[in-house]
Amino acid sequence: MRIKKKEAIAKLDKITAIVLKRGFFWPTAEIYGGKAGFYSYGHLGKAMKQKFEQLWRSHFFSNCKNYYEIEPSSILPEQVFIASGHLEHFNDPLIECKTCHFRFRADQFIEDNLKIKAEELTTEEMSNLIRKNKLKCPKCNSWHLSEVKWFNMMFPITLGAAGVKDLAHLTPETAQASYLAFKREFEATRKKLPLGIAIIGKAFRNEISPRQLFFRLREFTQAELQIFFDPDEINKLEKEEWKEISKYRLIMLPQKEKKVKEISCEETNKKLKLPKLYVKNMVLVQKFYLEKLKIPKNMFRFRELSEKEKAFYNKIHWDIELNLETIGGFKEVAGIHYRTDHDLLGHEKHSKQNLHVFWNNKKFIPHVLELSFGVDRNIWALMDLFYKEEKERTLFSFPLTVSPIDIAVFPLVNRESMPEKAKEVYNLLKQDFSCFYDETDSIGRRYRRQDEIGTPYCITIDNQTSKDNSVTIRELNSMEQKRVKIGTLLVELKNLK
Amino acid sequence: MRIKKKEAIAKLDKITAIVLKRGFFWPTAEIYGGKAGFYSYGHLGKAMKQKFEQLWRSHFFSNCKNYYEIEPSSILPEQVFIASGHLEHFNDPLIECKTCHFRFRADQFIEDNLKIKAEELTTEEMSNLIRKNKLKCPKCNSWHLSEVKWFNMMFPITLGAAGVKDLAHLTPETAQASYLAFKREFEATRKKLPLGIAIIGKAFRNEISPRQLFFRLREFTQAELQIFFDPDEINKLEKEEWKEISKYRLIMLPQKEKKVKEISCEETNKKLKLPKLYVKNMVLVQKFYLEKLKIPKNMFRFRELSEKEKAFYNKIHWDIELNLETIGGFKEVAGIHYRTDHDLLGHEKHSKQNLHVFWNNKKFIPHVLELSFGVDRNIWALMDLFYKEEKERTLFSFPLTVSPIDIAVFPLVNRESMPEKAKEVYNLLKQDFSCFYDETDSIGRRYRRQDEIGTPYCITIDNQTSKDNSVTIRELNSMEQKRVKIGTLLVELKNLK
Repeated sequence: MRIKKKEAIAKLDKITAIVLKRGFFWPTAEIYGGKAGFYSYGHLGKAMKQKFEQLWRSHFFSNCKNYYEIEPSSILPEQVFIASGHLEHFNDPLIECKTCHFRFRADQFIEDNLKIKAEELTTEEMSNLIRKNKLKCPKCNSWHLSEVKWFNMMFPITLGAAGVKDLAHLTPETAQASYLAFKREFEATRKKLPLGIAIIGKAFRNEISPRQLFFRLREFTQAELQIFFDPDEINKLEKEEWKEISKYRLIMLPQKEKKVKEISCEETNKKLKLPKLYVKNMVLVQKFYLEKLKIPKNMFRFRELSEKEKAFYNKIHWDIELNLETIGGFKEVAGIHYRTDHDLLGHEKHSKQNLHVFWNNKKFIPHVLELSFGVDRNIWALMDLFYKEEKERTLFSFPLTVSPIDIAVFPLVNRESMPEKAKEVYNLLKQDFSCFYDETDSIGRRYRRQDEIGTPYCITIDNQTSKDNSVTIRELNSMEQKRVKIGTLLVELKNLK
Repeated sequence: MRIKKKEAIAKLDKITAIVLKRGFFWPTAEIYGGKAGFYSYGHLGKAMKQKFEQLWRSHFFSNCKNYYEIEPSSILPEQVFIASGHLEHFNDPLIECKTCHFRFRADQFIEDNLKIKAEELTTEEMSNLIRKNKLKCPKCNSWHLSEVKWFNMMFPITLGAAGVKDLAHLTPETAQASYLAFKREFEATRKKLPLGIAIIGKAFRNEISPRQLFFRLREFTQAELQIFFDPDEINKLEKEEWKEISKYRLIMLPQKEKKVKEISCEETNKKLKLPKLYVKNMVLVQKFYLEKLKIPKNMFRFRELSEKEKAFYNKIHWDIELNLETIGGFKEVAGIHYRTDHDLLGHEKHSKQNLHVFWNNKKFIPHVLELSFGVDRNIWALMDLFYKEEKERTLFSFPLTVSPIDIAVFPLVNRESMPEKAKEVYNLLKQDFSCFYDETDSIGRRYRRQDEIGTPYCITIDNQTSKDNSVTIRELNSMEQKRVKIGTLLVELKNLK
């Protein structure tokens, strides 16, 4: 499925051109030249992002009545990150050119130059590799490079005018705020497990050298769900619930395998030893991608992380990867992390608050299963996966679930009461759909404009409309048209949802 | 309408207790003691905030087809704030105790101690007043205080590992990002005026001493709409449009008046010299508060700011104030600002990008009318205004437009197939409403729990349901119950929307 690098760059350029021109997104503060790692959503990108987030909510919340969304601050006091370990461990390897003082990421530098994976190396190993291979500064070509050292990736914030005493940080992941909220939410929702706390919000990471567009941003949106549960129940599921999914086949790339395999939930549980609660959430995630986002099966996989790759507190960690030509193949867009009681235990210790619960006749600290999604990455993935070039048009073949606009309404010509009728239709539909009205230029050009931004349906009011009150619905992918009476239009379209 | 201070504090305490217990909001990182100026929304607060934001969108966007929402970064490069003037002017007066090194806001210090308005004083005037009146440090009682000096209220951010060269700031208002986006959005939306760009997003201000709960936060949500228009059309409105509103009466407190008056749009335009575009948006804002949020008329007013109070770039500036007992009377919750071409002009100058447009056969920089809302303040205002104590219950008498939950569904007792029937009803309604199912405790206690969080309707499945398929709808304020067939329930409830 891989396309060549040249083609990938051409595709990237074409998508970028549409994205900028039509108002999906652009570099933040572009009129000042932008800043690496910062993007802003224009009106089409925002509409798409909102739809994605709404879809995410409704899909994952349907799973359990005891799931809730909260909205915390982005700035959290330093104590939080002492407890979570971010202050000590959330670092990237930094190297500095002693000649031109350019600073950059040592692991990426090694990967680019030596074509080996460097993510898991120690600073010492990296320094040695750089010395041994006589790598030179990418800016000034000097050999005079510093040792590799760790650089903390959080953005520090000083509160008030009190100086260094009142320190805080922009949160590098939304998850921490859910752990801080756990006690309050557990009590407010009447002390039941499992309890799900979701946050869709900003996270901030001071990347040394941000790159790969939406894949290494300094400010980005996460959609994360923390499921707090009784660890004794991790492999227990209602019989009916398990029966329903046990034959369902997951698309998996375990560490030991070289190729993706489809493995039933039953096998995943028995042979791969993944607990039923974990498997159930894998099913939910896979269905989100295949059924809701309509991602082609061969573009999707779960990948098991190696011991070295995964964070020490994650007992089980599989990433969700999509095959993205513009980014160079399969890339992480989400992850399912069994974080055990690591986080609540840390916060209990540092805050000296009791975070134990009483449930199932025992006192314990709940364990956490985390579903974590990078929203911007997913938006980019949709642009990449649904982009198509045809003879006469370029299009995003978006499903209705993620398209920025649902329906465009056109009068065929700008006379004979067609615009009035078209506005009537527009008003009829706008309560239930996001609609766009357009009467400028030829009908062909209007179709092309909607194709280019991936509008699934275009409705045209023509000569026949005044005779029999019918309109045409034109479908994005097939370009096929169908004639429908205005009286049944709304029902017809709702059925497509 | 004012209540005594003691009663106000009692009311504040009672609301705060409910808010914490039920999961509306709480101090951020509360388990670490919290941080002044930071609050987090729990699940009920988040639901309410989301509803408020959706209502805001649909209300203000209904006004014009050329209004769009975008989502920018919160971190913007320093150049933006050089151009906007924030780096130079966005300051608060700071004073430091030379004995104990406590730092605090000089204007608030003077206001609290001398009971005079200090907002408009110069640092010199403040220093003199403090000296003359021999004010003492509020912490250690020392007379040894520093001169008053300006303190910049933005949070600075250093990007990457490059040191001081790559500076940015957390945005202190969402508005700036709309000006940065103007050129892209104008082009993407086919170069038409008026163009509206809306942002609902976070803003950050490093308040020296945050206080008054949701009224002086360090991290808060703004909902802002920037309307870009041709300044020659500021007093031109379609005849029909003007006719429709010209008799509508605005609730106004002009600078010259001591009491609030109701003034028709006609008069506002002719006597107060407010241009028609401005007046039209005042109508829209007043209708939002009175008709959508159902704020009692006597709790609402527009207040004109004095020359000294308003920012120098605002040619016209009226605040929207609500009468909030818990905060001490009428307080600003929103504002309508005619910012002229100040912002785009500044960004054109500093970015050296051409921000002129061609429209109405001329080239010019569009002017801006800004509708600016503090979302958190409005949420608090709703809690304050709708809080009620009755003999047997406390309640928030929220309208359906802002209540965290729309409908609660109860089986009268936990047997005789009532729970099954109740779940059927719950499933019937949950597509169109946010619903909550509860079968625990007596029906009376269940009603009280919903009253306390302001759920407008409770539906109960009882003995009669199995006989004639009817249920009761109980209304929050009147506590009146009405019997309705399940078959017509959905239509009945939709009509209440």
